Amino acid sequence: MSSRDLDVAATLRNRLPGGLVVTDPDVVASYARDQSRFTESGLPLAVLMPRSTAEVALCMKTLHELGVAVVARGAGSGLSGAANADAGSAVLSLHRMDEILELDVADRIAVVQPGVITSTLRAAAEEAGLFYPPDPGSVEQCTVGGNAATNAGGMCCVKYGVTGDFVIGLEIVLADGRVMRTGRRTVKGVAGYDLVRLFVGSEGTLGVITEITVRLVPAPAPRHTLVASFATLRAAGEVVSDITGAGLTPSLLEILDRTTVQAVDQLARMGLGDEVAALLLIQGDDRDAATLLDRVERVCGERGAVDVARSADPAEADQLLEARRLALPALERLGDWLLDDVAVPRSRIVDLIAAVEEISQRLGIVIGVFGHAGDGNLHPTVIFDAADPESTTTARAAFDEMTRAALELGGTVTGEHGVGRLKREWLARELDPTALAVHAAIKSALDPYGRLNPGAVLEISNRD
Amino acid sequence: MSSRDLDVAATLRNRLPGGLVVTDPDVVASYARDQSRFTESGLPLAVLMPRSTAEVALCMKTLHELGVAVVARGAGSGLSGAANADAGSAVLSLHRMDEILELDVADRIAVVQPGVITSTLRAAAEEAGLFYPPDPGSVEQCTVGGNAATNAGGMCCVKYGVTGDFVIGLEIVLADGRVMRTGRRTVKGVAGYDLVRLFVGSEGTLGVITEITVRLVPAPAPRHTLVASFATLRAAGEVVSDITGAGLTPSLLEILDRTTVQAVDQLARMGLGDEVAALLLIQGDDRDAATLLDRVERVCGERGAVDVARSADPAEADQLLEARRLALPALERLGDWLLDDVAVPRSRIVDLIAAVEEISQRLGIVIGVFGHAGDGNLHPTVIFDAADPESTTTARAAFDEMTRAALELGGTVTGEHGVGRLKREWLARELDPTALAVHAAIKSALDPYGRLNPGAVLEISNRD
Repeated sequence: MSSRDLDVAATLRNRLPGGLVVTDPDVVASYARDQSRFTESGLPLAVLMPRSTAEVALCMKTLHELGVAVVARGAGSGLSGAANADAGSAVLSLHRMDEILELDVADRIAVVQPGVITSTLRAAAEEAGLFYPPDPGSVEQCTVGGNAATNAGGMCCVKYGVTGDFVIGLEIVLADGRVMRTGRRTVKGVAGYDLVRLFVGSEGTLGVITEITVRLVPAPAPRHTLVASFATLRAAGEVVSDITGAGLTPSLLEILDRTTVQAVDQLARMGLGDEVAALLLIQGDDRDAATLLDRVERVCGERGAVDVARSADPAEADQLLEARRLALPALERLGDWLLDDVAVPRSRIVDLIAAVEEISQRLGIVIGVFGHAGDGNLHPTVIFDAADPESTTTARAAFDEMTRAALELGGTVTGEHGVGRLKREWLARELDPTALAVHAAIKSALDPYGRLNPGAVLEISNRD
Repeated sequence: MSSRDLDVAATLRNRLPGGLVVTDPDVVASYARDQSRFTESGLPLAVLMPRSTAEVALCMKTLHELGVAVVARGAGSGLSGAANADAGSAVLSLHRMDEILELDVADRIAVVQPGVITSTLRAAAEEAGLFYPPDPGSVEQCTVGGNAATNAGGMCCVKYGVTGDFVIGLEIVLADGRVMRTGRRTVKGVAGYDLVRLFVGSEGTLGVITEITVRLVPAPAPRHTLVASFATLRAAGEVVSDITGAGLTPSLLEILDRTTVQAVDQLARMGLGDEVAALLLIQGDDRDAATLLDRVERVCGERGAVDVARSADPAEADQLLEARRLALPALERLGDWLLDDVAVPRSRIVDLIAAVEEISQRLGIVIGVFGHAGDGNLHPTVIFDAADPESTTTARAAFDEMTRAALELGGTVTGEHGVGRLKREWLARELDPTALAVHAAIKSALDPYGRLNPGAVLEISNRD
């Protein structure tokens, strides 16, 4: 750490309340970055661990006065480098602010601090007879604040939408420490600009989220689950199209490709068979879920499914969904992994998977594809050897080609993981120059010195 | 018109393509304002009627160079003065850009120009076996562009949400004529800031919407409709709470208070009876709508409904909903009207209606309340005599007191009609000073000279 960094850390310790500033090198190092690969980071000069909005405001005001950049952080489970620090910056970890402040059954809203673990909120809602749908893969570790800051998704989205569809109010601390509230507790409201949606998904580049008001929905009916395997990718794709085309609304519609299925089978010996080119996992949670799955089962038969299994029993359903849960752990066993996150129009999923297969074959690298077939959001996962520079270069090339393929299919470079540092250059390709200029103008309006998560989303030159 | 205005109008005619600039005084006067009351407006120097994005861009660039303020406009059916011009400004009417450019059944999206009438889009979606839910009261006149610019609501919102919940992509012309696209065609996407939601509901103060991509949903099941009358307001409120509390999701849940019911009965002789203190109208459009209404009917019985009628027949259902459609026409017959639009948390609807009754009695002025009970968004409508200054003053006072009551009940000053000019001062009361400063900073970043709809939403001093 530079002597300037040591000076700043000492000043922070002097000016901020006791226990708030952590400079222990091991702790600081463990807060330096999220779980992304291929993203740069440096050692921050301190980690600040505020316990209240007032303390967050004090931290931000102090950092503002000292001219120190700051990276706000939830659980650090992100995959895009949206919580990576640079040397000389500070990390602001919201994990101590982990209270559910309110859960109002009549108005179906919850008010939570940003450090509340997402699964904790889901459990609290369930206990109250309600449902908080957002379920990112990291649901047991990630925080509602991190979910809001990245507009996180999950498997629920095909029916329920993403985190942003549930956030109706926010408390925000701005770059200079000023505190504001935006949004509401009502179902509807159009008073002023939709700043809630502007801050949701802005990845800590516009302000720090210190309180979140979310809407809850009625508890779903008992879930019915179906798993179907197919000998061709196209057959699985046709079932997805048929389901969408028939206006059916499953609460989960996931796909695993051949590579992923084989990896899962090697790990868990599910007896899925070598002839399986794709697996579909489908769940319904409406009152007529049985009828929904009857229709899905019929469609699977018409499209030549190899095997179909279904259950209305929760424990059996969990077993049926096991293959999806094991997708990433199974691929991880094959080597180092680089997980992509692209989305295409629903009708282009098969084209995207086919493009990934072509890239995999041409570059001679293993890529497993799994993800949210129901909303066109897939996670092609490149397997490589991080110790081998050539393999690493090929992995990175495959990643770029897949992202480009998604854009060319009318899609987006990130469906739910965010831009962070990983896709900053890709964002600049997805947006037109005027849209990029508007991004920069808004960033500049809210963070004129470019100190909020300066490495993420936009290439902003330091304005100090 | 001033000589400066005449000069500017002549310059516009010279510099813009033929047929685009209209200066006929009668036409210009008819484009000067929307349908709001109690909002100021002046005679614009010209109405520009572009036929394409390129022409909008040319108009905006030219106005920018001439330093002329501009008010973009759909059908002018708004009720908040968000499409009111000032003397010396120009009106940009998007009504000629009325094409549905694309309706993609597989991806369930439509791409439309801003001048498309909302009911036209709904009909086109229906023809394709799909559904575009937004249904503002003015659905037969208003435009999708106007709906997006104001984030319009309607009766569908209790189940489906507001216009903004359906807009996934926009083309925007900025204040200086630059064109940008934002958003996407995919179901999910988190690439960059959510500028779509920032422009939606910004009432023409940040840019001009020239193309809208909306998502469509599967066609609903045949609708089942129920109407119930109650001898007390509280009983009706309890039924609303019971429905919400039971996790039921009607597709329509409207309320009419005693004053409105009596006005409707006088107009249409429905035989509703003097003892009716409130009428509830409830519709379901799920596959199990009959079950839903069975439960609603039971609840109505338990809460002592005076009368309950229901039907699954579309023509009969239309008759049952007639009272809701006649609410405003019936109140209009009583005098001049000033329609408020406030929203409170669902649990406070009865409190809001009671507050309105108290205001009505204390001020000695007739106020009918009707609106969207299912999402807490009500339209208390003050009846007064515009020719009588005292009555007018009282009406304005009642309006202010109702708006204040909504805020005090944890609500918002506008649920769906927008801020416009009518509620600019109320927005400043609802937002905290920091949130207001952020509004101003964003406005300034996108419209540095304050020329886009300068009278609406924010009090912006002229920066020229």
